[in-house]
Formats: sequence, C-alpha cells, structure tokens
Amino acid sequence: MVEQVQIFDTTLRDGEQVPGCGLSPQRKLEIAKRLEALGVDIIEAGFPISSPGDFEAVRLLSSEIKNSTICALSRAVKADIECAARALEGAAKARIHTGIGTSDQHVQTKLRMSREEVVRRAVEAVSYARTFVDDVEFYAEDAGRTPNDFLAHIVEKAIEAGATVVNIPDTTGFCLPEEYGAKIKYLKDHVPNIEKAIISSHCHNDLGLATANSIASLRNGARQIECTINGIGERAGNTSLEEVVMILKKHPELNLETRINTQELFPISRLVAERMNMPVQSNKAVVGANAFSHSSGIHQDGVIKNRENYEIIDPYEVGVNKSSIILTARSGRAALNFRLGEIGIKLSKEELESVYGKFVVLADQKHTIEDEDLRQIMVSEPHFQK
Amino acid sequence: MVEQVQIFDTTLRDGEQVPGCGLSPQRKLEIAKRLEALGVDIIEAGFPISSPGDFEAVRLLSSEIKNSTICALSRAVKADIECAARALEGAAKARIHTGIGTSDQHVQTKLRMSREEVVRRAVEAVSYARTFVDDVEFYAEDAGRTPNDFLAHIVEKAIEAGATVVNIPDTTGFCLPEEYGAKIKYLKDHVPNIEKAIISSHCHNDLGLATANSIASLRNGARQIECTINGIGERAGNTSLEEVVMILKKHPELNLETRINTQELFPISRLVAERMNMPVQSNKAVVGANAFSHSSGIHQDGVIKNRENYEIIDPYEVGVNKSSIILTARSGRAALNFRLGEIGIKLSKEELESVYGKFVVLADQKHTIEDEDLRQIMVSEPHFQK
Repeated sequence: MVEQVQIFDTTLRDGEQVPGCGLSPQRKLEIAKRLEALGVDIIEAGFPISSPGDFEAVRLLSSEIKNSTICALSRAVKADIECAARALEGAAKARIHTGIGTSDQHVQTKLRMSREEVVRRAVEAVSYARTFVDDVEFYAEDAGRTPNDFLAHIVEKAIEAGATVVNIPDTTGFCLPEEYGAKIKYLKDHVPNIEKAIISSHCHNDLGLATANSIASLRNGARQIECTINGIGERAGNTSLEEVVMILKKHPELNLETRINTQELFPISRLVAERMNMPVQSNKAVVGANAFSHSSGIHQDGVIKNRENYEIIDPYEVGVNKSSIILTARSGRAALNFRLGEIGIKLSKEELESVYGKFVVLADQKHTIEDEDLRQIMVSEPHFQK
Repeated sequence: MVEQVQIFDTTLRDGEQVPGCGLSPQRKLEIAKRLEALGVDIIEAGFPISSPGDFEAVRLLSSEIKNSTICALSRAVKADIECAARALEGAAKARIHTGIGTSDQHVQTKLRMSREEVVRRAVEAVSYARTFVDDVEFYAEDAGRTPNDFLAHIVEKAIEAGATVVNIPDTTGFCLPEEYGAKIKYLKDHVPNIEKAIISSHCHNDLGLATANSIASLRNGARQIECTINGIGERAGNTSLEEVVMILKKHPELNLETRINTQELFPISRLVAERMNMPVQSNKAVVGANAFSHSSGIHQDGVIKNRENYEIIDPYEVGVNKSSIILTARSGRAALNFRLGEIGIKLSKEELESVYGKFVVLADQKHTIEDEDLRQIMVSEPHFQK
C-alpha cells in the first residue's frame, strides 16, 4: 500500500529568513503560484506579526492560492495567533503553525520557565488557534535536543488541545538519522493519541544530514516533510524539497509518494535562486547545473552505451531540457556522434571522422561545444549544405 | 575505545573531473600542501594515464608531499598501473588505486564480459600493482548496485591478491543510508579475510545522501572515507570532507576520530572554490557564507543568551573569523550591544539608546552593518571621541 507524504514548503518563511533574501508580497505570490503548480500541499507563507510585509504576503497568498493550504507562523502568544488568523482570513485552506521551545537548552536559557509552564503555554496556544481555524500545527522547537519523554508528553497535550499536525524540528541540525528516526518512532510508540495527528519533520542542514534525517523520519512514521526549494534557509538551510521528492520517486520500495510534479523542479529552482539572490552550487543534487553533466571520457562512453551506467535520474524528469553529455576537448567520437544524433544528424564513419577533426579544433578554443556550434560545423561540411 | 578514520581526499582527482575545474600540476601542488596541513591521510592526486598533465601532477606531488600518502588512479589495465607506478616513484608513501565495474549494469552493458572474467581482471590488477607498491586499494565500481554476494566474492579475491584497502563506491549516488550501511555490514560478516583490509566508502550525492551514506558505512565497519573539499565532483559531487569530519567531532558517542585540523576547513574551502571556479552555495553546511549567520531577531536573541540555543559549531572551530550575529535593520538592541562588545565597546543603557537610533538609520540604507560601520557611528558619539 503506497502512502501519501505531505510536502510542506517553507521557502517563503524559513527560506526567506536569510540575509539578503527578503521578498515583497508580490514576489512571494509569484513564487507561491509556482509552488502551487509544483503540487506542494502546504505553503508556509510568512510570520505575520513579524512585519507588515509578512502580514500582507500571507493575506495576498490567502486570497490568490486555492489548491495549496496556506500556513502562517506564530509563537505561542495570543497576539501572534490573532495576527496570523487575520492574515489567513481569505484562505480556502488555512493553517496556523504555533509552538514553543521544548529542549532544556531552550526552556532554561531562552524561555527561562518551568516545563509545566511550557506545556501550559503550548496547550493554550493550540486551543486558541483552533478557535480560528480547523487546521493547527504545533511545533516543539529544538525537538532534536529535547528528551523523548518530555517531547512525548507535550506532543500528547498539543494533540489533546486540537493540533492536527505535530512538527518535530531538529532546529540546530544536530541529529544523526538513526537518532532522529528513533525519536519519531518513540512518539509513534509512546503518545497514546498520536494517530489523531500527522507527524511532521523539519530538519536543518548544519551537518549535511537534513535530507537523510527527513527520510529517516518517514521510515519511522512521519507523513509530512517541511522543506525549501534548493534547501535554502538560515545558516546551512533546510531540507531540500527536490532531494526528498526524488528519493521517494527513485525508491518505490519505501511505498511513499508525493503529489509533486517533478518536471517543475528545475524551473522553480532557477526562479527561487534568482528572486532570492541565492545561486545554486553547480554540484547541488537534482537541480545543480552539473547534476546531469558527464564530462570525462569514461563516463560519457558508459552513459552513451546505457544511460543507467552513471545516471539515476533522467534530466527531462526534473525539467532540464538539455543533454547530459557535455562536449569538451576531452570528448571522444562516441560522444560527438551521440550529440549529433540528438539534433537529428546521422553520419557515416568517414563523415564523422571529418567532423571530429573540426570539432577538436573548436573544442580547444571554446570551453564547451553547444548544439549551435555543432550546426555551424555541419554547415561547413559539403554533404550537409542545403 | 576511540578508533581512527582515514580521510582520503579526492578533490584533485574525482573533484577535478568536472567541466571547468581543470588544474595545472602547480595548482594541484598548492592545494595538496593545504590538504597536507589540514591533516588528510591520503591525497588522490590524479589518474596518470589519462593525460600528461595528470601524470606530471602525481609526479610533482609525490616529490613534494611527505606527510600524506599520495594515491594514483588506474583502471584494471597493465599500462594504467605501470603509468601510475612511474608517476608515484618519488613518493614517501605511495598507493595505487585500481579496480573494475562489478554491478550487472556495468559488467553487462559497459564491460560486456562475464563475472569470472571481471574477477580475474581484478585479481591480476591488484597483484600487478603490488609488484610496485605495498599499498594497493581496490575499487569495485558501482558497488552500490552490485549484488552483495558477488561483491563479497570479488572483495575476498582482491584482498587475497594483496589489496590493503577495499573501496565500495556508490558510483551513481543511488543508495539509501540503511542499504549502504547494510552492504558494508554484509562484507564485514561474509568476507573471511576482511580484517586484512580497510573498508572504504566512496559516495556520490545525486540524491543528497553522500554524507549520510558515508556515516552509515562507518557505523558498520568502514574506516576510510573518500571525500572532497566542498563536496565537489562530477554531477552532484562527492561526499563533503568538512561535513563528515564535523559530524565525527560533534558526535563523540560514535567513538571515531580523524586527524583533521578543523581550523583549516574554512580557508581550504575558499581556496578550492576559487582555484576550481566552483563557488560555494551560501547555505552549504559547515563552510557556506551563511553557515553561522543568525539574522532574525528571535534567533539573534537566543544566540546572545547562549550560543548553543541555535548553534552547534563555533565558527572559530572551523577557521571562520567573524561573528555569527549579522546586524541588519531587523536586529534589536541586544544584537547591537553584543556586537559592540565584540569590538571592545561597553555602553550604558542611555548611550546604547543613542547609538541604536543612529544604527537603525544606517541599517535602513546599508544591507548589513559591519564592525567598521559601528566604529564610524561611535566616532560621532560625544563620549567616544578621542
């Protein structure tokens, strides 16, 4: 039985919380429309009480986006929740996301209150949020470093108070996958009313483990992943939406699926990179410029013989409309012939030899040879002049 | 008992196999010296038979680098091995890295030979390499997709033939951590002579799991990690050296350590990014420009109260000499006061109020406020004019 995983995109909230990434409400709407087309289940649109711009963004998205749930963040504070509720008024599907720190670190040095007080605040916040909307997500900040017994207790109370989703953030990106997975399993096993809510994972990438931790959470019962396009976010960022989605697609043995239209992944990656001024590293998984580039002779040969020798994702599957065989001075006749074939040119051995001679001369001058260069070379070939 | 993990850096071989990243032998030497200072155990310097430049680079590094082992790549081909051995002649510690594809995919569609033939070629290559050097690493290309029984068989034969290290590459970056870890455990449990060799992991990041897979391999008995600075490499790149090293450092319960001097991580990250023309994404774990930046008011407050509220790595630990509290228009008085303190300025409440007024005016004009800006503001304060 294949189960559904909810994709909760927080590009516009946690992703935007980065120096230099601020977006106007109109820009947020532009990205939100693409997130809706991508098939994201929930769009976290902002933190309304934090600024008038964030309030306006949540309000605007609530009035324009109809297929994805619009979510607004708030602390476990009445004024925050009221503000979030006002911003969400026009939404077809609205969610308030509220919560409080639960680790000893946060309880003692940041909040400076007792655990009992923290639980009381959490319960009040969830109950109050439920007076405005039916869909309330509770977050236990720094859950990654929160002892499992206390975490189970506060999660149980939050669900009792009406939380429909419980978010277990690894706020500092500290957890190892086994540890984070075990935490989710502990909640599944020890929270009596856990079946009444969806468990959500929210991971940070400080140690490079956000994606692995998110997958570990799914293996242990989580059914919502909080993530961002290109993995952007404060510090080392959040879980990469594109990585989680492609792992589930490439590993059907996990029996989990999302509603994401993967052909939209590359276009939205580029849009977010540009609008938020956050260039994507060339070797970024799934959406990097080089993610599908084979340049060494051995790899090119292998891929031409059978794509699956070195490639597990077809570029077209994620919306990349270019060949993965990059022509450089290191490429051989097989690669050249392959790329000519892709633009509809078939040559005999002798013809290929002649074209190859011209190709290497040009490849020594230019870094990479594009389709247009190949067409130029062909124009100078006697047989192909039209 | 804390065990040692060997760090095998392949920035100069697999990392360099990227369009536009080519390095001259002199440039390779410059980076290699920094890798040696970083404390890398093995430097894979190149693939000597692939080009005269690669041969020369391996030769040059062999004569100049004395603390790290120098490793050269070869296919399971006599001429490759001879060429690698010649290039390594001057090395204080030399290793030849040789191997062959072992997955059905590679055996059938790339190599087009029988499994018996593949094993014979592997054994011959390792034995031949051992006539030149005492340290021979065998790689089973595409081990990630190789059935475990055949993998165990060829690994056993390679060790019998003299391999000191056996490399189990997840060439296409397809494995999930549990699967890759189980593969290493299978070898530990089923290869009778496995204790005579070190198991090495070589992971690719096509699904964003290279780091998690490497850690999974260590948990199951691998004791060498193949990785690159900034995770560069063909397609989505290799395992990030800095991520693996910091995970082991931050998780002492794993009882594993490396010889890496972590304060060299940030400087070498920048050197490699610049020399190889591969900018690092701002939110890259451990070495990204934003990895230690806290910009939102809530997070800044939390960090100022106690760094560990939101930060698990001290920037100075990885060689970053700047504050993690970024001053922007969103920063409050606490953040301003904290940063002033860092440059040795202590203010009374009233003085802070006056300075804060000037700060917000400037912060509205400038994207971020640096130490120099703070000093400029202070110059205009009557009490601080010298």
